[in-house]
Amino acid sequence: MSQIRASRRGEATEEVAKLAEAESIPVDKLVQRVARGSVVIIKNAKKLEGGFVGVGEGLRTKVNANVGTSPEVCDPNLEVEKARAAERFGADTVMDLSTGGDLDEVRRKILKAVSVPVGTVPIYQAAIDAARRRGAAVEMTEDDIFNTIEKHLSDGVDFITVHVGITKELVKEFLKGYRVAGIVSRGGAITAAWTLRHDAENPLYARFDYLLEIASEYDAVLSLGDALRPGSVLDASDPLQIGELVTIGRLVKRCRKAGVQCMVEGPGHVPLDQIEANVKMEKTVCDNAPFYVLGPLVTDVAPGYDHISAAIGAAVAGAAGADLLCYVTRAEHLGLPTVEDVIEGVVALRIAAHAADIAKYGAKAMKWDEEVSKARARLDWASQIKLAMDPEKASEIRRRYPSTSGCTMCGEWCVYKVLSQEISRRRG
Amino acid sequence: MSQIRASRRGEATEEVAKLAEAESIPVDKLVQRVARGSVVIIKNAKKLEGGFVGVGEGLRTKVNANVGTSPEVCDPNLEVEKARAAERFGADTVMDLSTGGDLDEVRRKILKAVSVPVGTVPIYQAAIDAARRRGAAVEMTEDDIFNTIEKHLSDGVDFITVHVGITKELVKEFLKGYRVAGIVSRGGAITAAWTLRHDAENPLYARFDYLLEIASEYDAVLSLGDALRPGSVLDASDPLQIGELVTIGRLVKRCRKAGVQCMVEGPGHVPLDQIEANVKMEKTVCDNAPFYVLGPLVTDVAPGYDHISAAIGAAVAGAAGADLLCYVTRAEHLGLPTVEDVIEGVVALRIAAHAADIAKYGAKAMKWDEEVSKARARLDWASQIKLAMDPEKASEIRRRYPSTSGCTMCGEWCVYKVLSQEISRRRG
Repeated sequence: MSQIRASRRGEATEEVAKLAEAESIPVDKLVQRVARGSVVIIKNAKKLEGGFVGVGEGLRTKVNANVGTSPEVCDPNLEVEKARAAERFGADTVMDLSTGGDLDEVRRKILKAVSVPVGTVPIYQAAIDAARRRGAAVEMTEDDIFNTIEKHLSDGVDFITVHVGITKELVKEFLKGYRVAGIVSRGGAITAAWTLRHDAENPLYARFDYLLEIASEYDAVLSLGDALRPGSVLDASDPLQIGELVTIGRLVKRCRKAGVQCMVEGPGHVPLDQIEANVKMEKTVCDNAPFYVLGPLVTDVAPGYDHISAAIGAAVAGAAGADLLCYVTRAEHLGLPTVEDVIEGVVALRIAAHAADIAKYGAKAMKWDEEVSKARARLDWASQIKLAMDPEKASEIRRRYPSTSGCTMCGEWCVYKVLSQEISRRRG
Repeated sequence: MSQIRASRRGEATEEVAKLAEAESIPVDKLVQRVARGSVVIIKNAKKLEGGFVGVGEGLRTKVNANVGTSPEVCDPNLEVEKARAAERFGADTVMDLSTGGDLDEVRRKILKAVSVPVGTVPIYQAAIDAARRRGAAVEMTEDDIFNTIEKHLSDGVDFITVHVGITKELVKEFLKGYRVAGIVSRGGAITAAWTLRHDAENPLYARFDYLLEIASEYDAVLSLGDALRPGSVLDASDPLQIGELVTIGRLVKRCRKAGVQCMVEGPGHVPLDQIEANVKMEKTVCDNAPFYVLGPLVTDVAPGYDHISAAIGAAVAGAAGADLLCYVTRAEHLGLPTVEDVIEGVVALRIAAHAADIAKYGAKAMKWDEEVSKARARLDWASQIKLAMDPEKASEIRRRYPSTSGCTMCGEWCVYKVLSQEISRRRG
């Protein structure tokens, strides 16, 4: 039985029970949230191995890392290494966004390599296969799209991004050309090109019930993609983005009616002062469906440091209620990331997620901070390193310069030494 | 005549006139803000060379970078190199926080090396000199403190941090011991130790009028330091921190009465959901004095990545009204930073400052983003690199993998290629 159906009967699945325990939430509350769709359990029901993750209301904010080949940098083993590194540094989910080489091979290798849930964007492969076989992405057929989705899910993919909200009408609206940065979703651009070429409705929108049938078979989570997300802070919260969100909101209701779990994807590039509004809007328009945001980046001017622009936006989004934060690496807008970029991106977004949890959950989320702070105050270096989010990096930095005092920042002028001597003298 | 006095007469000094032009603000508005103290012009009136910076209401959010020797890593030329790198990558001010070696030498070298305003914390040198000459920091005399301040300002230092708000009463309150992370300000710890040893009032508080006289002579900006800032998110916004802020608020009034420019320093380590309140509180309690924040860090758990924790907090603080953002490097809590750490820290905080300006000033601040986004949409790589906040890093990442298509992230599957082909086909 699917997660949502079991929960609606008031039953806790094995995953819901484990999640309640892991996140210290009463199990009946969690069952209710899964039942009404404000929490999703990401796990392909037909896969035999691999873990699951819970995303949504009241849960720890989660982090996703994207990996995948590109037409010019295409080494499946390198992408497997990135996926493993992402998992090791704490990513909760991994998405394979490959667009180069043997796509089936890369996906299956990544599925085998990690135990966190894996997501994909099947329309990439449908378009690439069509380009290879028929000479152009827009030559893909509706069956190509649905067959590729079925193939991914039968491989064990746990969640898929489907650009269901970009209707033919919105594409025509887009053509009026008032955006600075156009369409920046790859799946969105492919879908828009297809609807223009065929003067037909987006197949994933037109045949949404068929998509629900396929997803249902695997209890896969549909991640309703934001094809029209802003690609510049100047395009944020425009009628195209919000128009698509409204369409998605209607589709969320249809998912729930069909007993299919879904989450909603969000921007993108958004000014800092619009992020909270974006999150609140998603929660109202999409009836509290979990919100999966890409960053958002709070400025367009810092290529080479987009992991930081994203961490800023993601922290604010998470604090406002976003549930799953997709990382952005420093290579974004410039090239394919390296393994180091992936690690740095995961850590940057984990900082954002934890900062969001402190804001959302207060004391419950601050236990870790308390342990670190107490270790710091008693100058317990071993514990400080061990408790650090990335102990390897912390240790490496600490050992760069030789030190006899403990730390080369202040040495004997460490605040904990300066004052404790005087306090001890008074007490002693 | 001092900046504040000229402004009170309705006159625009040379600096105010230049600043109005540079930041596209009507000069009379700026004169009024300097007159009432919501804007400060940071520039030692007696120095012959070097620039100035304006900080406060309605101005671009500025970034400060700390450099300086430590007892164990003490190479004046390395610190000069850091100061120069900070300036080159866009820091608006530099502070020399040296605690190792010949402190006069380091300070004078840094003052010579950069053209941005330089700040110091004179009490460090007063304490270190006392430790060297008399065996203990707490053996420094009141005259030592004031003489060191005078020495720094006569060297041309533009602004100084003075821990004026940590009174004897607050130190006694602190001793009750309910904090997780104690006192984490070095100047604060030194001052607290001194008041305990001598059972006397903090000299900078007790003889505040004398401090004002000295500052007045150089038209130096007093940066009223937050000795009791939280050093853990668990200590944020506690009665010690807010008690000190209230004291500082009273001293702001005395600065203004004496015609001395001042700004107020702020935390520290603060949960994301308390940052805006901290900024608003400073603005009310300190009558809109410019707010100079250290980060704040939004979590304690990520040593090795504190530039990112700080960028998150600083962006939110800046958007809420903070005026000058002090960077934190990834070496914070672990050791002295390298030149690379300094550069990365400056860029991280410049991202935060720019994101804050977009939130505060809207379209006026987004012109840069518009240029970058347009270059991106037309696949103009030369302009994208040239316009990047750190063109060197962007260029380095772009060239890591060879590419024939322009970018190894998506190659031929670039959104701007996929869709533009179809749009071109339709048009003609």
